[in-house]
Amino acid sequence: MQALTVVPEQKNSLRLDTLPDPVPGEGELLVDGLAVGICGTDREIVEGLYGTPREGRERLVIGHESLGRVRQAPPASGLVPGDLVVGVVRRPDPVPCGACAHGWFDMCRNGRFTERGIKGLDGYAATSWTVEADYAVRLDPSLEHVGVLLEPATVVAKAWDQIERIGARSWFAPHSVLVTGAGPIGLLAALLGRQRGLEVHVLDRAESGVKPELVRRLGAEYHHADVEEVMTRVRPDLVIEATGAASVVFGAMAGMGPYGVLCLTGLSPAGRTLEVDAGYINRDLVLDNSVVVGTVNANLRHYAAAAAALAEADRGWLDALITRRVPLESWEEAFERHPDDVKTVVELRPAG
Amino acid sequence: MQALTVVPEQKNSLRLDTLPDPVPGEGELLVDGLAVGICGTDREIVEGLYGTPREGRERLVIGHESLGRVRQAPPASGLVPGDLVVGVVRRPDPVPCGACAHGWFDMCRNGRFTERGIKGLDGYAATSWTVEADYAVRLDPSLEHVGVLLEPATVVAKAWDQIERIGARSWFAPHSVLVTGAGPIGLLAALLGRQRGLEVHVLDRAESGVKPELVRRLGAEYHHADVEEVMTRVRPDLVIEATGAASVVFGAMAGMGPYGVLCLTGLSPAGRTLEVDAGYINRDLVLDNSVVVGTVNANLRHYAAAAAALAEADRGWLDALITRRVPLESWEEAFERHPDDVKTVVELRPAG
Repeated sequence: MQALTVVPEQKNSLRLDTLPDPVPGEGELLVDGLAVGICGTDREIVEGLYGTPREGRERLVIGHESLGRVRQAPPASGLVPGDLVVGVVRRPDPVPCGACAHGWFDMCRNGRFTERGIKGLDGYAATSWTVEADYAVRLDPSLEHVGVLLEPATVVAKAWDQIERIGARSWFAPHSVLVTGAGPIGLLAALLGRQRGLEVHVLDRAESGVKPELVRRLGAEYHHADVEEVMTRVRPDLVIEATGAASVVFGAMAGMGPYGVLCLTGLSPAGRTLEVDAGYINRDLVLDNSVVVGTVNANLRHYAAAAAALAEADRGWLDALITRRVPLESWEEAFERHPDDVKTVVELRPAG
Repeated sequence: MQALTVVPEQKNSLRLDTLPDPVPGEGELLVDGLAVGICGTDREIVEGLYGTPREGRERLVIGHESLGRVRQAPPASGLVPGDLVVGVVRRPDPVPCGACAHGWFDMCRNGRFTERGIKGLDGYAATSWTVEADYAVRLDPSLEHVGVLLEPATVVAKAWDQIERIGARSWFAPHSVLVTGAGPIGLLAALLGRQRGLEVHVLDRAESGVKPELVRRLGAEYHHADVEEVMTRVRPDLVIEATGAASVVFGAMAGMGPYGVLCLTGLSPAGRTLEVDAGYINRDLVLDNSVVVGTVNANLRHYAAAAAALAEADRGWLDALITRRVPLESWEEAFERHPDDVKTVVELRPAG
């Protein structure tokens, strides 16, 4: 089989390798890779900023946004050859923390988890891979061309789950949400907001192109303006932050209304200092009973919720979110940045 | 009856007035005032920064931390003359918002509430007052000398309620809490933390005196150090912020561990700008699944929880929290600031 591999923490070590075909262990599926999505974490790994190989290995197979078709399945797995599946990213440590032991490995307390394609486990950027049947999520067959969006959708499903659990601490009937950032996470967050019947606003720095168009096709409103200005005008009940830009994060934090929830999903590098009116932000959070919640990763329940959300979504809209599909042999192109990129995907099937 | 009144928004208009004795309306109690606590909001009102009189009035009776003894009660009220009671502060608008309509007036969404002694309703700094029986909370008779602490305890009961509801969004088994600030709110937050069996740390700028002593008597640990240093050393699961100091708020925000909850209860003035590593704070909140929650006021359930917490507490410790008791005729002294002040109370009963 062929796979994209890196030497973690070594810049520009990414290459296409030919490796022995994987052999499924007990309770595991053998899967033909269909596609793998590329995200910011992959770029960080390729830049040598992040990633850990399997114990005893030098190279790591990257890829955590997976899609494949089952070739071989254990009898009692509930899956059969031909099923469309996505592999879960994170695994709890064999000696789990309290959260991991209770199925909340996305909320791991001691950091001793592993992640396919990121931390201690090979990933899914391979023409053939194995996965424990318990960590494979079956997708509706009609999602064959867009199912690679499941993993980013799980991050968003968790974000909404967090918002709703936190909102439920008192009377909660949100009317509107502002999503900051129209990348894959922002757009999928907007989709799930529309699926909840909310008035959805999306803010991004793109002036035109595919992002405003994708927002409009959802029945949401696109804004190209400062976050402070949009917050004042729209007065959203909820904000989902998906830019990771420090000024947007703190602009949103300062602008929330009563019982606001600001859900942070975007990663920013440390060292982005800002001068903020810390007194005002604190006072406003207190007097408004507002919440800022950070969220990362997703657990099995979020995979199920995301699979349901994708199955309910317009296939054409999901397809339009994938702005570039790069064949495996041209893998280097997948890591280029094009102006109208939303989600870039590497196709793992031989062409034709 | 005698009452402390101000002309709201007029600095230093506070005076002791003689007013007509109040007459209870239908469903109301007539109560002899025993004591009223003085807090930061009262000081802001006296400084002319805050407060609204009853419609059509010039002066407002201040006081929202109440304690009284029932003189006269409606037959079906569940209360009888002699009962020790505290009056609730906030009332929903007659045309309530969704939160107020569902009993969550502490989470009011449109700001159209009233508050005894603060906003649109006369307060409890009076030798005689009336209150709707539904908004009076009966205290254990043994709390006669300390029951004036109920209202600040309700703020703390709500803070803990918020932390616990938000923590329950996933597996939650906190071990330790850091309370920043050893004023009445911080010390009562520490008390409720100890009542929950947690390891409790309290940070304050006092080097010695009554605050460290009160912390130690709780079986908690006292810290006189920077919040960053204490966070690093103690690694608390939870932080309850009760200083309102912008540097403490943001120091705590930057130092939280996995699944941390930082509960903000202290008010800071706007205009306290700080240079913060906004990128680091955002990244840390996201990767740790952490929450910052602001909380203000309390609803009827929090009054019940606070009454239970005070009933369970050591009476001597509660009594020591009230560091000065000023007779009504010397009311001006209650607004002075003494170095070892924790809670100052105005005694409303005639001396002797």
